[in-house]
Amino acid sequence: MDYRKELLYQKIARDIEAQILSGTLKLGDKLPSVRALKNVYKVSINTVKQAFLTLEAESMIESKPRTGFYVSKTSQRRLDLPSVGRLQAGNQEAQPLDLIDKVFNTLKDRSITQFSLGVPAPSMLPIATLNKGIVNVLKRLPDGGTAYDAPQGSLALRRTLAKWSLDNGGPYTEDDFVITTGAMNAIYNCLLAVTKPGDTIAIETPVYFGTIQIAQSLGLKVLEIPSHPITGIDLSALEKVLTKINVCCFTTNFSNPMGSLMPEESKKKLVEMLTEANIPLIEDDLYGNLYFGKERPKPCKYFDKEGIVMWCSSVSKTLAPGYRVGWVVAGKFKEKIIRQKLLQMISTPVLYQEVVADFMEHGRFDFHLRTLRNTLRYNCRHYQDAIADYFPANTKISQPQGGFVLWLELDERLDTEKIFDKAIKYNISFAPGRMFTLEDRYTNCMRLNYALEWSDKLRFDLKILGQLVKDEVNALNKGSEFG
Amino acid sequence: MDYRKELLYQKIARDIEAQILSGTLKLGDKLPSVRALKNVYKVSINTVKQAFLTLEAESMIESKPRTGFYVSKTSQRRLDLPSVGRLQAGNQEAQPLDLIDKVFNTLKDRSITQFSLGVPAPSMLPIATLNKGIVNVLKRLPDGGTAYDAPQGSLALRRTLAKWSLDNGGPYTEDDFVITTGAMNAIYNCLLAVTKPGDTIAIETPVYFGTIQIAQSLGLKVLEIPSHPITGIDLSALEKVLTKINVCCFTTNFSNPMGSLMPEESKKKLVEMLTEANIPLIEDDLYGNLYFGKERPKPCKYFDKEGIVMWCSSVSKTLAPGYRVGWVVAGKFKEKIIRQKLLQMISTPVLYQEVVADFMEHGRFDFHLRTLRNTLRYNCRHYQDAIADYFPANTKISQPQGGFVLWLELDERLDTEKIFDKAIKYNISFAPGRMFTLEDRYTNCMRLNYALEWSDKLRFDLKILGQLVKDEVNALNKGSEFG
Repeated sequence: MDYRKELLYQKIARDIEAQILSGTLKLGDKLPSVRALKNVYKVSINTVKQAFLTLEAESMIESKPRTGFYVSKTSQRRLDLPSVGRLQAGNQEAQPLDLIDKVFNTLKDRSITQFSLGVPAPSMLPIATLNKGIVNVLKRLPDGGTAYDAPQGSLALRRTLAKWSLDNGGPYTEDDFVITTGAMNAIYNCLLAVTKPGDTIAIETPVYFGTIQIAQSLGLKVLEIPSHPITGIDLSALEKVLTKINVCCFTTNFSNPMGSLMPEESKKKLVEMLTEANIPLIEDDLYGNLYFGKERPKPCKYFDKEGIVMWCSSVSKTLAPGYRVGWVVAGKFKEKIIRQKLLQMISTPVLYQEVVADFMEHGRFDFHLRTLRNTLRYNCRHYQDAIADYFPANTKISQPQGGFVLWLELDERLDTEKIFDKAIKYNISFAPGRMFTLEDRYTNCMRLNYALEWSDKLRFDLKILGQLVKDEVNALNKGSEFG
Repeated sequence: MDYRKELLYQKIARDIEAQILSGTLKLGDKLPSVRALKNVYKVSINTVKQAFLTLEAESMIESKPRTGFYVSKTSQRRLDLPSVGRLQAGNQEAQPLDLIDKVFNTLKDRSITQFSLGVPAPSMLPIATLNKGIVNVLKRLPDGGTAYDAPQGSLALRRTLAKWSLDNGGPYTEDDFVITTGAMNAIYNCLLAVTKPGDTIAIETPVYFGTIQIAQSLGLKVLEIPSHPITGIDLSALEKVLTKINVCCFTTNFSNPMGSLMPEESKKKLVEMLTEANIPLIEDDLYGNLYFGKERPKPCKYFDKEGIVMWCSSVSKTLAPGYRVGWVVAGKFKEKIIRQKLLQMISTPVLYQEVVADFMEHGRFDFHLRTLRNTLRYNCRHYQDAIADYFPANTKISQPQGGFVLWLELDERLDTEKIFDKAIKYNISFAPGRMFTLEDRYTNCMRLNYALEWSDKLRFDLKILGQLVKDEVNALNKGSEFG
């Protein structure tokens, strides 16, 4: 495939999409002709047609025979955004461990539609290429990887990451990276390096439950900071509690479960605020490469002058969760983290590190990411359409700008754990909202993974899920009529 | 190779060796004839000859032309055993981190003779077979290992370990094992599960410095319990401080650096004592398969009725340190350890786990271990002979009954860190004794790894090392003459 050509039609499609989303092009407007765009972009007719076909496949535009393309009805349909959670520290309930276990236990069953999954479906991962990479790397690996690796991690991988960081928040050198057993392990070690039991950690809300579990296992108090579905962490809310906190851990690019993206200005301000208060920031940037916009968003690390930001990521959301290859650029905490890793496990296995390095070289990673991002963007729109079609009209839905999870807020009387118990009987699993907080809230929310192969079956499963929600609402309404 | 035949000649060699070591056969005694032994053991003449050749290669016996085999002079030569360390809690100094770093930094340089190494030399590992295993396992692994493994670890590996445990301390089921990132990671998680900062841990002395580092990183106070070079932990010393300690961590089979082996009776008594006091025991059994005796020694876990023993091991000392595959049978602490692993790293990479399982099946592991044990036993004797030849006569030396490290105690005025600095100029590295304690002691000791390919070069390096020690002693003697 010609990389450049692919990029051009995507760029054109994105430009048109941006005009539709911003309202410049409105419902029913006719798009410029193929010939006109060909001249504007100085590309072939086929490239413009390809852009139109992409937008049509995403239901953004529709063709009318013999007249051209028009902005479609679907493109305009929008459910409301979910609400912003309140700052509610103090009255903390326990983590819903039984609920988390219940959802986890469904993950191994391949007959279940895994809307609850936290990683892309295997069909979206470049498994055959990675397997070839294992065989190739094995041939050149001294001692076949039986020897301990350097505690800091494979030099080949750290070099590759350093090169890649040039365009993505760096530039950093191979010496700045420490390889970890996935991003979770990076976060665990960052927290271990900068906190002591009794300290307070600030996280966004709703938040990935794993972060809460790590924090609690280290004896930390958790403060859930309100986060906007589009722009992420509410900086003024954070500022109010700044004197109470010892460390922050935020997913600045496409938070999980909300999909929010902090604007660059907010990131810069956040880093300045924390630098002044001398509070370390653990930046969980594991979704950063799965952006739907024009370019990879910068991490907070980009604005970090004093080395207070620990920039964590991994290949778990893009290549191979099972490889357990993650890393951190840990600023002034680097040496401490290397020493912790040394005594916890000496080193990480070298083979997978070198396979990832091999994959990242020669443009394979970029190509894979481009394909994956397109698929996710396309899937996201299909989910949003299906949910608008099949769920109650008062359903609120996130507008992720990257990543692969959607957050739904339903009628406030609903309990999504009850809906989960019903859905699982239809072989459908999702992540109930209560999992994503320590407080008694989000019980009417759910998280859906859209990194699953889009199909009629998947649409039908969303229809069933929507129907289960509607049934529940009807039952409640009937109950209140008779009550 | 015929497994059974190999076993027979080894058994005969061991029987004769035992008679020599116990003094039944003395210096100059003539051994029974080949024909006589052939009838006793009901084996072929070649099998008996093979046994004699083995003993001759180990310098235990020597042949005299036309008369037969005799107990050799070498077999009788013995340096004294090292002293037993005293109980010295309270006046703890810091760990010698600079020294440890200095020694670690020499490990990557392949031009240096690595007497300091903590693992077998690559030439002793079955690398080609393991590499083939990787390619084979990859073919049948669903998703090529890109999916998360179960937090408890690969079912295939846990099943294989359960089968193997039948003869080795078990029987346990696949459900009893938790896979970890090497034995260090198992110990880290065991300590995390049963201690809180400020607690006290009892360890043997001298002890592997990694254990001290883990304990200190968790905020534990360390109590070094005297340990005998042959029989390990001094139970009466331990009993005296039992009320002060919260957890024990002992290497009961071939301790590092001393090579001691706790007798079965002591193990039983230790478990009873700790069960009654409700003190968990972390048993670091990573050398257990490298026994020089007739059979694999049982772990303390074998005597554990209440689930207080956490039995840890790995393949790092026998197959592939870099794979980072270890495990623990954690008794009543199992669930806690699985949960900790889940939040620290979700899972361990599945490929290496399955490769180890594959290797352990079909007798490959047993065969490899048998070969490795023979090589180590042979090397150990060569080292002991060379040290008796080249080191000062007052050198004390351990008599390891398994594993692959020797512990030397030199003239008490010597500082082995100074000797290290000189030896490294001759491209010789070893582990100075001060690394193996928190106290100010063992500064006149050193640990040598004998899992290196035996050769004239290696003998010559031991000669150089001995000469450096002698030079140091001479300089001190001269100093005191003039002082």
